[in-house]
Amino acid sequence: MADYKDLDRKVIKLSKQVVRMCAEAGSGHTSSSLALGHLTTALLYRVMRYDPKNPWHPGSDRLILSEGHAVPIVYAAYCDLGGVVGQLNQASELRFSDATSLRAADSVLDGHPNPAIGFPFFDTATGSLGQGLSAAAGLALAARMSGSAQRFFCIVGDGESREGQVWEALDFIVDQKLTAVRAIFNCNGQGQSDYVSSQQSPYALGQKLAAFGWDVKEIDGHNWDEIFEALKAEPGEKPVAIIAKTIKGWSVSSLQSVASHGRAVAEDQVAAALAELDAKAGELGVAELSDSDCAKLTEPLPISPPPGGAISAGSLSEALQAAGLGDALAAKKLSTRRAWGAALAALGADGRVISLDADVKASTFANLFEKAYPDRFIECKIAEQNMVSAAAGLAAGRRIPFVSSFAKFLTRAYDQIEMAAVTNSNIKIVGSHAGVSLAADGPSQMGLSDLAFFRAFAHTHRADGAPAIRVFQPSDAISAFKLTEQMANLDGLCYMRTHRPDVPFIYDENEEFTLDGFKHLIDGEDIAIVASGYMVHVAKQACKVLEEKAGLSPSLIDVYAMPLQTDEIMQIGDDCRGQILVLEDNYAGGFAEEITTAASKSDLGVMVETMCVPRIPKSGRSPEELLAMAGLAVQNIVEKVQKMFDQSEG
Amino acid sequence: MADYKDLDRKVIKLSKQVVRMCAEAGSGHTSSSLALGHLTTALLYRVMRYDPKNPWHPGSDRLILSEGHAVPIVYAAYCDLGGVVGQLNQASELRFSDATSLRAADSVLDGHPNPAIGFPFFDTATGSLGQGLSAAAGLALAARMSGSAQRFFCIVGDGESREGQVWEALDFIVDQKLTAVRAIFNCNGQGQSDYVSSQQSPYALGQKLAAFGWDVKEIDGHNWDEIFEALKAEPGEKPVAIIAKTIKGWSVSSLQSVASHGRAVAEDQVAAALAELDAKAGELGVAELSDSDCAKLTEPLPISPPPGGAISAGSLSEALQAAGLGDALAAKKLSTRRAWGAALAALGADGRVISLDADVKASTFANLFEKAYPDRFIECKIAEQNMVSAAAGLAAGRRIPFVSSFAKFLTRAYDQIEMAAVTNSNIKIVGSHAGVSLAADGPSQMGLSDLAFFRAFAHTHRADGAPAIRVFQPSDAISAFKLTEQMANLDGLCYMRTHRPDVPFIYDENEEFTLDGFKHLIDGEDIAIVASGYMVHVAKQACKVLEEKAGLSPSLIDVYAMPLQTDEIMQIGDDCRGQILVLEDNYAGGFAEEITTAASKSDLGVMVETMCVPRIPKSGRSPEELLAMAGLAVQNIVEKVQKMFDQSEG
Repeated sequence: MADYKDLDRKVIKLSKQVVRMCAEAGSGHTSSSLALGHLTTALLYRVMRYDPKNPWHPGSDRLILSEGHAVPIVYAAYCDLGGVVGQLNQASELRFSDATSLRAADSVLDGHPNPAIGFPFFDTATGSLGQGLSAAAGLALAARMSGSAQRFFCIVGDGESREGQVWEALDFIVDQKLTAVRAIFNCNGQGQSDYVSSQQSPYALGQKLAAFGWDVKEIDGHNWDEIFEALKAEPGEKPVAIIAKTIKGWSVSSLQSVASHGRAVAEDQVAAALAELDAKAGELGVAELSDSDCAKLTEPLPISPPPGGAISAGSLSEALQAAGLGDALAAKKLSTRRAWGAALAALGADGRVISLDADVKASTFANLFEKAYPDRFIECKIAEQNMVSAAAGLAAGRRIPFVSSFAKFLTRAYDQIEMAAVTNSNIKIVGSHAGVSLAADGPSQMGLSDLAFFRAFAHTHRADGAPAIRVFQPSDAISAFKLTEQMANLDGLCYMRTHRPDVPFIYDENEEFTLDGFKHLIDGEDIAIVASGYMVHVAKQACKVLEEKAGLSPSLIDVYAMPLQTDEIMQIGDDCRGQILVLEDNYAGGFAEEITTAASKSDLGVMVETMCVPRIPKSGRSPEELLAMAGLAVQNIVEKVQKMFDQSEG
Repeated sequence: MADYKDLDRKVIKLSKQVVRMCAEAGSGHTSSSLALGHLTTALLYRVMRYDPKNPWHPGSDRLILSEGHAVPIVYAAYCDLGGVVGQLNQASELRFSDATSLRAADSVLDGHPNPAIGFPFFDTATGSLGQGLSAAAGLALAARMSGSAQRFFCIVGDGESREGQVWEALDFIVDQKLTAVRAIFNCNGQGQSDYVSSQQSPYALGQKLAAFGWDVKEIDGHNWDEIFEALKAEPGEKPVAIIAKTIKGWSVSSLQSVASHGRAVAEDQVAAALAELDAKAGELGVAELSDSDCAKLTEPLPISPPPGGAISAGSLSEALQAAGLGDALAAKKLSTRRAWGAALAALGADGRVISLDADVKASTFANLFEKAYPDRFIECKIAEQNMVSAAAGLAAGRRIPFVSSFAKFLTRAYDQIEMAAVTNSNIKIVGSHAGVSLAADGPSQMGLSDLAFFRAFAHTHRADGAPAIRVFQPSDAISAFKLTEQMANLDGLCYMRTHRPDVPFIYDENEEFTLDGFKHLIDGEDIAIVASGYMVHVAKQACKVLEEKAGLSPSLIDVYAMPLQTDEIMQIGDDCRGQILVLEDNYAGGFAEEITTAASKSDLGVMVETMCVPRIPKSGRSPEELLAMAGLAVQNIVEKVQKMFDQSEG
């Protein structure tokens, strides 16, 4: 029988540090951390093949702490190991004492794991529960594409396993045969406010995991032999899930009640808690032992990550021909969703580009990529949350994932998208069938609130000052194609919105699209019309009517990106009798607010009127019927402009 | 052996109508509908205890079509039965021929089920997948509370069962022992773009459902004996799940390939499809049979739904005393989340009020309700999506559910919330720990994008002209208490945002809060400061500094509701040197946009500056540290106002 006294000693040391650091911070999940003392020590000091001095090594085994609140125990260990933090060009080593900076404003030891603030040991931000296993799956996909035998250890809480996304990930990992993922369920039997349901008992979890096609190993999460046997087990056909029975607040009695979740030990009880851990050390016969040579680390694996550099989609003509869409070139008419698909297929010549879709590839046109690069097309089935978090894992594995579904269905994954934004994850999200032009399928399939949600992130900055999410809404196939190429080359999270109907080309194939986000299509002098996406086409028709029937000369501006540069647009508005009309096929909160915000801060005194979708729509058989329902038909716009013009005259 | 010839005849008739109606609409999921011909006929003509002439009967068995795209077969049957549609006071009977109005702009037969547009046979809008079983659970909870033995038949697609929410619902139904729910999995083996994964095969589903604690019955979904035996089975301890193996595009060969999802039969192939169904009728020996007396309906059950009427929370003092928070009255200090919990507990005197929480009751303070009314407190565990959809089911069952979790975690359920808005569902959503004042836990726990998302719905109207969602952000305990009472009495979806820190009372206990959404707290003349929620307290401190140090006299307006009435605020801005500064502790897109939009449409020429959270935050140990990180500290505000003032002078 192996001697684990040095590991026992280490667990005591780290546990004491966890008690101290949470007490110092005044908060932190002490009890959850103590439940993971043995598992963390086994992983970080013995099992994982990695180098704490180089957490960026692309061939490392990785730990994904899905129950992010238990992070203090990992911080304690990583500090003890002198782990490196910061940015690649500005790295520094932690010391054991640094752990007590937990949750301080100037510390990289955030309340929950977050690589973006300088803790590169982790790949994705966690803390909103249920997302880690999906991220691990994405990392494992990337590793497999690089031919690497890395392993991805993911710790999931028992209460956390109630989140549906966990079961999406379990299906996905089996579908994709990602046996490099080792799922560890930390079964301490307690949730945040109560005991976990019997539906999440070790027994129930075991039954479920087996039914989902996993090889289940149930262990005592504080027994070294059982821990090592399970962690080192090589999977066969099935991926391995470890059910680790643990004690929340291990060895600290005051932390073991069900009311102790998320609690730091009170200042005046710290000494007692530490004494309990010392007593445990005595009981284990390790009170006097040194823990200094506990770590037996194995080097990361050699790996050749994909090279960097710019990615080209080539010319639209060639891409459309390659995608079998040559007819569109002659007709000069194509939907933005199809143009996106053709662009994606063209970008696929770069091995970093991956396409993930949620069983709607024939509608989003991700199937154009699949046809060209079947090995890099990942069918995620109807499980959008797992898809987005898996993409975040792929991005952490240095891939450039494009995630596609109907814009409406991606609403399902807004929490996951927000966590990807916290991570500064380099994923590209494409929502199709946006707006009311989808028509017949009705509001359950239409993306209408998406621009309001994503605009919030377009105006939120990452640490480096770039927008947390860049938003694109192309109006035609040319802009869709060019902006897709641009998304692939931008560093960071992007969202693109595409539409169902075929629409005429607006731009020449050689047009370039800057991040300023607008094109002045028609230069007029009576009212500036600002439109985005599908509404640009409706606006063009309205402009024609206004010219021919009313003798008016409106300006027309196509806005296609957020954040939007608005100075010149304000100037155009000022030149057009100081009046702007914004047109959108979504609920309030999108491009209209880009313009109204600019106008309210500008001293030009431009007045802005907005027309967006003012009601929850229903089905209709054509885009025109839906536009009429939303008060966005050509005639509505003509009347509105006429009214604004009359007022400016009057 | 029973004779099912009349049912066979009916299935043929309805199937032919489905082919016709989708062809007429030019779209619609013909093949999915044909897979459900037998199950729908069994349910609507024989098994369900309901009255198609009175779909509002509160004691009806209900059908929840989670895979909403298969709705044409239900419409065909309901029209055949002369089912009633419209509103209670303006109802009309459908005829068989009405089915061909599918998806027309003036038809109640929307592309996907939606009671809000006048199809009351359904309780909640479906179409975004995976939500129906949760809604069924909510309906079953309401029925149990009313002592009713209603049954809730929920049809879920096999591909759809990949959605994690389905597994959340399965757990929830077992936890809550809701055996009135009968889950029917329609296993036709095809998804939207491909075959379903082997993870969703009838065998795999059966294994999983059994592991989740369900009594599984596998049947041939086109075999009457097996269908009736399964549908009529009385559950024991375990809820019953039926795995029905079906054929997508039953009896129409052109619809059976995997590329046929969501397809209407082309105009020139309709005759051939109908001929195939006629041939099938011949094969079954029912070609000449009348189907006229097929329906053998059973009356709905007698039931006493809870009475209506206004709900009172009583006085704040009494509610706080009752909740054990009497000390706060003396201290005049309490967090908005605690005040919400006390209000909820007080409202619980009305039996319609239900509290649902996702394992954070001790943090949201839903536990105050639980303590008072344990039978009406529903612990949903860590599964926010199921919680929201279950609440929609409860609301359909004439209850008034309050759904609480951290605002951040509710992001997880934005798709479900949007579907509840499509339904016009009367649910109340409360997100706690909003904004940066949460501090130490970091961005994975902070609600920052919520106001941008919900504002989109505050400006979207329901059919009756009311906002799709009303949004509230109280600044103190008094307003939190009063607005909670108001939410309970409003008809429709409401969202309230509460904060973690204790804050001083701002208002007198007798203050009333209108839906105008603002209070003019300080009447000044140099810059109008508009603040919401926690930021009102920061703004008050800034005002004090501005008065004492700079001799300025700012106005201060507390804005607490969206949609916000802005006319008077614009006037106040105009009176304050034409300048307004808006303060928010969230990302862009919330109250600031209420003001900028108003300003840009107003001819008063008021200039607006906004300060919100401009970056993705990280942990800090105090709200003050986080405010400083976001540039929202008292000093930042003072400097900004001083600068605006200087410019207005210069």
